[in-house]
Amino acid sequence: MMGSSIPRQLSLNALEPIVIDLLDLQQELTPSFVPVRSLPTPLEFMRQVHTNFPVIYRGAALNWPALSDRRWSKQYLLDTLKDTIVTVAETPFGNADAPLDGTFVQPHTSQLPFPVFVNNLLDQNADSVCYMQSQNNNMPTEFPQLVDDVQMDISWATEALNSKPEAVNLWIGSSRSTTSLHKDPYENLHVQILGQKVFKLVSPAEHICVKESMLKKATYQKSSAGFNLIAEGERQPWPTVDPDEIDSSDQWQSRVRVLEVTLNPGDMLYLPALWYHKVSQVSDTEGLCCSVNYWYDMDFTGPLWPFANFVRGVTNLLTGDEHNDNIADSGRS
Amino acid sequence: MMGSSIPRQLSLNALEPIVIDLLDLQQELTPSFVPVRSLPTPLEFMRQVHTNFPVIYRGAALNWPALSDRRWSKQYLLDTLKDTIVTVAETPFGNADAPLDGTFVQPHTSQLPFPVFVNNLLDQNADSVCYMQSQNNNMPTEFPQLVDDVQMDISWATEALNSKPEAVNLWIGSSRSTTSLHKDPYENLHVQILGQKVFKLVSPAEHICVKESMLKKATYQKSSAGFNLIAEGERQPWPTVDPDEIDSSDQWQSRVRVLEVTLNPGDMLYLPALWYHKVSQVSDTEGLCCSVNYWYDMDFTGPLWPFANFVRGVTNLLTGDEHNDNIADSGRS
Repeated sequence: MMGSSIPRQLSLNALEPIVIDLLDLQQELTPSFVPVRSLPTPLEFMRQVHTNFPVIYRGAALNWPALSDRRWSKQYLLDTLKDTIVTVAETPFGNADAPLDGTFVQPHTSQLPFPVFVNNLLDQNADSVCYMQSQNNNMPTEFPQLVDDVQMDISWATEALNSKPEAVNLWIGSSRSTTSLHKDPYENLHVQILGQKVFKLVSPAEHICVKESMLKKATYQKSSAGFNLIAEGERQPWPTVDPDEIDSSDQWQSRVRVLEVTLNPGDMLYLPALWYHKVSQVSDTEGLCCSVNYWYDMDFTGPLWPFANFVRGVTNLLTGDEHNDNIADSGRS
Repeated sequence: MMGSSIPRQLSLNALEPIVIDLLDLQQELTPSFVPVRSLPTPLEFMRQVHTNFPVIYRGAALNWPALSDRRWSKQYLLDTLKDTIVTVAETPFGNADAPLDGTFVQPHTSQLPFPVFVNNLLDQNADSVCYMQSQNNNMPTEFPQLVDDVQMDISWATEALNSKPEAVNLWIGSSRSTTSLHKDPYENLHVQILGQKVFKLVSPAEHICVKESMLKKATYQKSSAGFNLIAEGERQPWPTVDPDEIDSSDQWQSRVRVLEVTLNPGDMLYLPALWYHKVSQVSDTEGLCCSVNYWYDMDFTGPLWPFANFVRGVTNLLTGDEHNDNIADSGRS
């Protein structure tokens, strides 16, 4: 039943104009920048989610206690969390969960007293780059002392999406760490508290431009002698294109449209489900970059998930390596 | 730039599992029936639109004047529209805008006094099948006398989508006419007033199952000798599968999931943008089938339009005939 017994051949050239149409349509029908809007009603936010396009809510969190009286600072966090043990990603170059020479490298993970973590963060000559990036709903579970300084959900988003956030995460890092291009199956609201974050965004329609590959996984192991990479048996599909280093001679990279957003303290970014994002950080004058994000479940019953998965499967045929056969099934992990 | 100089060959068999994944995902993640819901708030309707899944609002229009005092009847319409000239589609078999032996046939169009049209509609032995189906916002322009009997927009939909309907259409037909499977680039609310309508629905993800072909266009011309088909130069992309006559030995038709909805007087169907629908009619005891529909613009800036267009372009490669090269560009017409 799976096709005729004589395998019909199709030139890859037949697929290319269809992919180019997709890129052109996406880029023609949407803005070439991320719009700035005032805070939405639940209905306005639901329309934004439907559009699956990012938007900036400037100053959305300026009245939160963390910001309204400049409550959060290095000293405030050190005082409040002096007895707290935190989970910290450690890497040699600030490259947690990132492609490196054809390998997908994951960080060494440590449990450190918060003051030790901050000392490392502020030491430009430390032998490891630390980033508190655990993304496991750490805000209520690990930092109950800070909960009243921020919000535990974004009320208009909760009402729009008819559910509480799946996770509320506190991120503390510095200019030394960068999050490599990737996507998440969540509607994401990202609120900057200290320092700046710079997002480079690529739409799900442009999957072919980010050259997803099945990378061998490896994990950093830190010892007194430094970092070693320990190979794992599995592979991980991951975009291998760096939006800051586009190869304009590559037929697909040259077609990508990277949208750039800089978040200042109090700003909120709506980052739609399945959008690729690379995130760089700029420390504040005390050396910290700190934000809180809210992950809401995306609607898996709508067309975005199966259609984006289809785009991914088809376009990987055009850019793929020999391991890409496994990609289509591994996207939801 | 358009591919390497040595054309790489790809077996069509490589595309098939990706298409099957799409069909499986769509069918696993959505209900296998059209849910019945109570009337939505604007926000609830916006969530429904985001899901791009049909829903029935039973009895939604029972309090409209057309229905609440059984105002609409054959006699009421004849009295109210006795001097009105209406645009009527005439065909030999009730097959306006339908595939017929590999041709896309369009109806003969007449301007008839409303009483003449109704006489034809009620005459089972008439030599032509009439259907008032002009879909050109005819409600306010041709039938101002009837406007107060219905609604000129659906308030919660207008608020959700932040725009008035692009068109409000009155449809008057009988059991003898059927609308063949097709899709529209509109969010559609269809309200039944007299008789019943039976919808057969197929999701945009299942495009491959409806076997779109580039059909030669022809138009019926009616004369005293009967109907002739006059060929036109153009072709029209159109689904050629009849959801009531699925060929279960066909590898793609056998995978389709047809959802069925019967609307009774007062019921409203939300028919999402780009869903394929075949519509059959059941006349009421007086011989009439009458409904009003509201077309709201779909959001062309969201992912649905480019992604559905991509699915269409790619899957037409698997099912297409030699004319399908032209299909991808002709979808928005």
